[in-house]
Amino acid sequence: MDTRKAGSRLDRQVEFIVEVDRLKEIFRQNVVTVSRRRENDAEHSWHLCLCVLVLAEYAEAGLDVLRVLKMLILHDLVEIDAGDTFAYDAAGASKQHEHEAHAAERIFGLLPEDQAREFRSLWDEFEARRTPEARFAAAVDCFQPMLLNSRTEGHTWLKHGVSASRVRARARRIREASTSLWEYVEDLIHGAISRGHLSDG
Amino acid sequence: MDTRKAGSRLDRQVEFIVEVDRLKEIFRQNVVTVSRRRENDAEHSWHLCLCVLVLAEYAEAGLDVLRVLKMLILHDLVEIDAGDTFAYDAAGASKQHEHEAHAAERIFGLLPEDQAREFRSLWDEFEARRTPEARFAAAVDCFQPMLLNSRTEGHTWLKHGVSASRVRARARRIREASTSLWEYVEDLIHGAISRGHLSDG
Repeated sequence: MDTRKAGSRLDRQVEFIVEVDRLKEIFRQNVVTVSRRRENDAEHSWHLCLCVLVLAEYAEAGLDVLRVLKMLILHDLVEIDAGDTFAYDAAGASKQHEHEAHAAERIFGLLPEDQAREFRSLWDEFEARRTPEARFAAAVDCFQPMLLNSRTEGHTWLKHGVSASRVRARARRIREASTSLWEYVEDLIHGAISRGHLSDG
Repeated sequence: MDTRKAGSRLDRQVEFIVEVDRLKEIFRQNVVTVSRRRENDAEHSWHLCLCVLVLAEYAEAGLDVLRVLKMLILHDLVEIDAGDTFAYDAAGASKQHEHEAHAAERIFGLLPEDQAREFRSLWDEFEARRTPEARFAAAVDCFQPMLLNSRTEGHTWLKHGVSASRVRARARRIREASTSLWEYVEDLIHGAISRGHLSDG
């Protein structure tokens, strides 16, 4: 590759890498288990990737793990512009996709065109949840916050008055991707109700 | 897979996922670009994965990107027990590998044996820097903090009196993996010196 051409391409790529440093400033509703501060999107994205390495065996056979990881590394970048929408915020959800699609245009558009197209396509795939890879990525994105909530005495569930039926409705994303993980979450929900960390309704 | 067996295996896997949540509490020397707070290991690990997706084209042809990502997702887990060792702390570095090897025993040992072995082997590969994948992972682990330092007016370099010759010595890890990235860093170092963000010595 010609060095000067590589230079200008690389310059755009580096500016993208610097821009997405902002993901570390987007804070979610759930808290981390030790200090109980709110989790940010960047460390959340890392934790999801870690979950995939550990839990991929519970997905459909033949899962393309690399594509799942790519989706999860990129899936929250749109929140740099659009902000975090709480999983149980129905009002926020209605405008969410429109804001996020604008954000995807701007943020992926910082990259050279071929990469912008590739990353946008991975994000669209994640959002549509129609491939096994997107379904497993969505399942893990659902599983990890439930796990953190169950290990922080139901922090977010109690704070926002989220009921077990709404958690179960959301857990359908897990059932679509993995029976084992869904059964685990069913037990987790029962346990949280019995300890008073989640209201049974 | 039998559900009960899967249950006990899955229990160990979930305990591992909860334990490594602690990576979000291990703070590094460099700061993030917007709020200028110290970066933690979990968000750093995510940022390295993102760098791999963007920059893999500058590695040796035929790179196994999935293995690079696996290494980077796991590479800092040992710091949960061993703490972060600053890249330019020669005294700390001498005992570092011993502490980290103990940490690897405990932390990967939380997993079922087959996964413990696989993850330990990935961490050993990363540490040894003998495969193209490990060399590229190490290069990115070197490149990202240099980039953050250059975009925060040399924050860590000035705070710890790190000279350009030490940064150049460390950048050898980048040169071993990618000529293009190394040339970029050479320019970055020149720029930082000219702006007074790095001492020329």
